[in-house]
Amino acid sequence: MNTFDFLKPLIRKTDSKIVLFVCDGLGGLPKNGKTELETANTPNMDELASRSELGQLVPVIPGITPGSGPGHLGLFGYDPVEYQIGRGVLSALGVEFAIQPGDLGVRMNFATLDAGGNIADRRAGRIPTEENVRILEKLRQIQMPGIEIHLLTEKEYRAVLVLRCSGLSSDLTDRDPQVTGVPPNVIKPNSSAAEKSAALLNAFAEKATEILKDEPKANTILMRGYAVYEPLPTFDEIYGLNAAAIASYPMYRGLGKLVGMSTFAVDGSIAEEIDQLEKIWDDHNFFFVHFKYTDSTGEDGDFDAKVKRTEEADCVVPRILDLHPDVLAITGDHSTPSNMMSHSWHPIPILVHSKHGRHKAVSGFGETECSMGTFGTIQSKELMPLLLAHADKLNKFGA
Amino acid sequence: MNTFDFLKPLIRKTDSKIVLFVCDGLGGLPKNGKTELETANTPNMDELASRSELGQLVPVIPGITPGSGPGHLGLFGYDPVEYQIGRGVLSALGVEFAIQPGDLGVRMNFATLDAGGNIADRRAGRIPTEENVRILEKLRQIQMPGIEIHLLTEKEYRAVLVLRCSGLSSDLTDRDPQVTGVPPNVIKPNSSAAEKSAALLNAFAEKATEILKDEPKANTILMRGYAVYEPLPTFDEIYGLNAAAIASYPMYRGLGKLVGMSTFAVDGSIAEEIDQLEKIWDDHNFFFVHFKYTDSTGEDGDFDAKVKRTEEADCVVPRILDLHPDVLAITGDHSTPSNMMSHSWHPIPILVHSKHGRHKAVSGFGETECSMGTFGTIQSKELMPLLLAHADKLNKFGA
Repeated sequence: MNTFDFLKPLIRKTDSKIVLFVCDGLGGLPKNGKTELETANTPNMDELASRSELGQLVPVIPGITPGSGPGHLGLFGYDPVEYQIGRGVLSALGVEFAIQPGDLGVRMNFATLDAGGNIADRRAGRIPTEENVRILEKLRQIQMPGIEIHLLTEKEYRAVLVLRCSGLSSDLTDRDPQVTGVPPNVIKPNSSAAEKSAALLNAFAEKATEILKDEPKANTILMRGYAVYEPLPTFDEIYGLNAAAIASYPMYRGLGKLVGMSTFAVDGSIAEEIDQLEKIWDDHNFFFVHFKYTDSTGEDGDFDAKVKRTEEADCVVPRILDLHPDVLAITGDHSTPSNMMSHSWHPIPILVHSKHGRHKAVSGFGETECSMGTFGTIQSKELMPLLLAHADKLNKFGA
Repeated sequence: MNTFDFLKPLIRKTDSKIVLFVCDGLGGLPKNGKTELETANTPNMDELASRSELGQLVPVIPGITPGSGPGHLGLFGYDPVEYQIGRGVLSALGVEFAIQPGDLGVRMNFATLDAGGNIADRRAGRIPTEENVRILEKLRQIQMPGIEIHLLTEKEYRAVLVLRCSGLSSDLTDRDPQVTGVPPNVIKPNSSAAEKSAALLNAFAEKATEILKDEPKANTILMRGYAVYEPLPTFDEIYGLNAAAIASYPMYRGLGKLVGMSTFAVDGSIAEEIDQLEKIWDDHNFFFVHFKYTDSTGEDGDFDAKVKRTEEADCVVPRILDLHPDVLAITGDHSTPSNMMSHSWHPIPILVHSKHGRHKAVSGFGETECSMGTFGTIQSKELMPLLLAHADKLNKFGA
């Protein structure tokens, strides 16, 4: 039985409030015996740990390293293996494009063709973002009857193309051959349902290459990461929650929007995110607060910077507690060990604080304590029913 | 693959004996740092703990609080999400009615209609049980051709109606509107297969209301919790076990009967249940012994009383060990923390003693030790194959 169908009749709508504080990439590997989280001076989390349940989240299945999309979908209770959001849609969300059901999102790279029509550089010499904006403007002259075309700058050589019309499909081969010295591929449909989409994208690529032929670097486009946007069941529909997402990076607001959260952009520090949390406290009963820098410092391979960023996250914990949430969960969407300079598969430490906690004395909030914690080790997708239970939002199952 | 189909060819029928001692609602939450089980003076369980495997059972899936039905079905190895036993059947089992395959069980409430025909009280002023018995006797005059009608008193305003004939279905809307100030609903079939059942129940309700029209309080009946009894595969069929259930409450004997156990009623204390166990020791190779009061004291919110009841359970452990069971498992069907005054989703502590145990030194039998125990944390439905294995009742899988 589908978990959402199983949960639905058990949902109890209440005003109790849940805060899911996601420190992106929380969880690391030891250096001199201690991880970033264990090295950081985190008096607030450490004190809270002995009054909370500690445990671990496996983001997907053991051994699988997720991107931000599956990492967060798991936390939100959506099986990331079942609910796969394609790159094209994630990229559109990441630039805050208002994507609609049925839209086809495509990841687009500017690239360089040599005189013979072969790809010389798949990234067009990593042109600066301003160039991307200028060149994309030229492509806006492309028109195709009955089709809405949206062109969105991401960063440097990366852009997003969104087509809007009926009958689009992502079941297509890539225009990007992933190697240089060959011409771009002609996009082919993998099924008859994708013939229209293939024709549209090939026509677009041809026109774009014609328009860009005098550009020194970005004289063609490559395409891959096709995804048709299919709306997910929302937090309200599944959990009866009126949820808010607070994040400084658009991608994470986009992920919140994907599951029906109201989104709040904050341009700045975690302290400002908590300002926002305080402001909207009365209006929602679930709050996803996203802190980016524990991940980005890990990806930079900067152990000490990740430690510092973890301490920043710790500083705001008392302000969250002052709001008296019924449940406060502190965790990550995946681990990002700074000595790996990348996301990883390692279980993510989690702390769940509520009045129904089964706790024990621990030395603090860290990977080792979490591996032996009373919350146990579960998959990320199993978290939401537990948060609902701790918030008294689930009725008993069966007599 | 279905677990039962997977197990069947591996089953080894032996005389080795398994005791599953279920302390209902075992598992709580800490008060002054210790749970009820950790507070209780349980020298026998504590001594056994270091010679046993300790672990935790998740009754359904993380976060889900089960009723007694799904709690026990899980322990017996039946996925409680797949095998859902409706309230009507559970209630009939709870009053020891000999329910038969195809019977339709219905939960019935006596209720009060006002002069305008609207529901004034959904519980008929919580009439005493003697009144229930008297009024139910009046309803026994209702006859419907070709249908066997059974009327069973539960408690106060609650009763059970069982219809017996062919072609019954539970796919019906409730007569109980769950609110006052409106008339009872006409029961509607959700599918054509349920038309006959809807007609029978509406006719019964109409006749009952006519008969009861002069009753001051219980002048109508409400209906919900429809369930057709479909027999489950039995312990003998699945596990090759000749199982016995010893319980003082009929509901738990009923749950044992549901899976093909021979049932033994004991009117009294846990010591008398163990008398019964001794008496039938030679006749069975699996014994489900149910102790109710760790749950009821928890539901009363009485921490100290739950502690005392846990100590009562501890007292009989040496008598069970004196019978030399090959496997003794001590656990619950769910947790009932007394500070929540209800069942909960928290994992249930379990102790499994056999000659094949992988154990370690522990301070005793309690939630914290169990959360770190060698048995690990599994779902209740996964327990039975482990008990069979510990009792040398499973052959090797594959060559």
